[in-house]
Amino acid sequence: MKKIRVMIVGYGNVGRGVRLSLGKNPDMELVGIVSRSPERVGKELPDVPVMAISDVEGWKKAFRPDVAILCGGSKNDLPQQGPEFAKYVNTVDSFDNHSRIPEYFADIDAAAKASGHVSVISTGWDPGIFSLERVLGGAFIPGARAYGFYGLGEKGGLSMGHSDALRTIPGVKDARQFTHAIPEAIERVRRGENPAFEPGDMHTRECFVVLEEGADREAVTKTILSMPGYFAPYKTTVNFVSQQELDEKYKGFPHDGLAIAVGETGDRHAARVEYRCIWGSNPEATANVLVAHARAAARLAGENRSGAFTILDIPPAYFTTLSREELLEHWM
Amino acid sequence: MKKIRVMIVGYGNVGRGVRLSLGKNPDMELVGIVSRSPERVGKELPDVPVMAISDVEGWKKAFRPDVAILCGGSKNDLPQQGPEFAKYVNTVDSFDNHSRIPEYFADIDAAAKASGHVSVISTGWDPGIFSLERVLGGAFIPGARAYGFYGLGEKGGLSMGHSDALRTIPGVKDARQFTHAIPEAIERVRRGENPAFEPGDMHTRECFVVLEEGADREAVTKTILSMPGYFAPYKTTVNFVSQQELDEKYKGFPHDGLAIAVGETGDRHAARVEYRCIWGSNPEATANVLVAHARAAARLAGENRSGAFTILDIPPAYFTTLSREELLEHWM
Repeated sequence: MKKIRVMIVGYGNVGRGVRLSLGKNPDMELVGIVSRSPERVGKELPDVPVMAISDVEGWKKAFRPDVAILCGGSKNDLPQQGPEFAKYVNTVDSFDNHSRIPEYFADIDAAAKASGHVSVISTGWDPGIFSLERVLGGAFIPGARAYGFYGLGEKGGLSMGHSDALRTIPGVKDARQFTHAIPEAIERVRRGENPAFEPGDMHTRECFVVLEEGADREAVTKTILSMPGYFAPYKTTVNFVSQQELDEKYKGFPHDGLAIAVGETGDRHAARVEYRCIWGSNPEATANVLVAHARAAARLAGENRSGAFTILDIPPAYFTTLSREELLEHWM
Repeated sequence: MKKIRVMIVGYGNVGRGVRLSLGKNPDMELVGIVSRSPERVGKELPDVPVMAISDVEGWKKAFRPDVAILCGGSKNDLPQQGPEFAKYVNTVDSFDNHSRIPEYFADIDAAAKASGHVSVISTGWDPGIFSLERVLGGAFIPGARAYGFYGLGEKGGLSMGHSDALRTIPGVKDARQFTHAIPEAIERVRRGENPAFEPGDMHTRECFVVLEEGADREAVTKTILSMPGYFAPYKTTVNFVSQQELDEKYKGFPHDGLAIAVGETGDRHAARVEYRCIWGSNPEATANVLVAHARAAARLAGENRSGAFTILDIPPAYFTTLSREELLEHWM
């Protein structure tokens, strides 16, 4: 079988995860990486072809990708890269700024339709798998609200966005933020209350901060606790640790979550569905989902479809290598 | 908006659940029921039009259904009714004899393609939601096996098929069978062992039996424990109870399950996904899923698609009443 030719755009934690994931999906091959820092990436990966992201004619000719997996960030990279790359190639991305998804979808849809490409946007585990589970929960249990909780385990889940926010504070040398779900809130949902939560009712935030020499603990604490959106609405704890402690005890990118919907069927019978995921590495989890969607993008393109798609627009069989016969025989 | 006209075929527990579910889905209406016992159903539901299942020309003209939800059993009803009804109307069913799904799919596909109808087969929660979750688990965590466990709660889950099997035994007046998942087996899966289980390694079976007067306990017990397929491969307990006890303590159709896949992402990081559902009424849960698939069948038919479909072939957005705009804005 001809392999799906995949190009990675942007080589950070998610890009690394995509490279590793491609190695476990035998129907795909990594044809190259494009980066704003091709020299840095080339040094890290001497055996992989790497080109500058700006050299469009170059990578098109050299890599001839079927799908480009865009691994940049949602704040600055994707709003520009998404519509741009959709002009040249089928794309998949994990754009995760929930409130701006309609606008991003429209931008990409216009570019991808004009060029005749498929662009799958906003996938990963949330948005992505959780979006799917929320919609299924609402469809199969009419009237149930769908909730998402994060960081149910003892250590909680590492939030990249909130860690980045901490690092912008003057006096902070390094920091990591772990999100914790509030167990009582989950219990209320499980009991079928379908409560109207404020953000601070569902999660708490735990910060581990390394200070720069001479920085003012109290000022930093105050800045954190009053940061609008990120920390102000939440019960937040701030712990000051050494760099060594941070690197040893709070390393890695673990994350986990729960999508849940509770309601009733027919004659007042309780109904509850829960989707739970636990990831040792959040960026690798996102990468795995991106790679499965690259397979779907290639199939949709093979049917001469074009425009923007989300996980909600794709038949689930498109994510797997399994044939219709195998699916009917062993997976139904 | 024009409502989707739904006809119920066969009025047992699932049919009752579909009727109740349609009342909670404002984009659909129940246009009529066809039954082999129209008089019985008409007495139960004086306000609903009921016709004989055999009066094809009659119900086609009187009900003009967009979709027929086939609520019959997988053993005798659906293998005959499925391909027959696919000649006349779009259909949805919960055919759940896993080993015969490929054959059933082929029969329905031929009939539905010839008549230009859409037939969604084998949906409900398993097969159905669990099939979807197994496939997603395998696609997002390559190398992970997907497992299904049933009856995780204290009381376990009522198995209709096994209860029916008990009732065929001479000397048994009534009986109900509860399935229990074996917690140690779930723990092995969660630990990432991806074990190769025999059926008896995953579940135990608990029987509550009402004997006919003068029946021989030991003979009945022996017959149960040695019943191939149903009980012989499992650790099975048999409890003899009075009819009153059975009716009071073991009533209803509760069921629940867990679909789970465990593996690794990229650089040897643990990855685990679990889908858990808990239903106060198993037939009502199946009914709710059938109704959401009736919506999808109507949409697929509206696109001039035809043939057999499973949950794996349908974009998830087709299950919901939510518009693309609502989905992008609030559900991603």
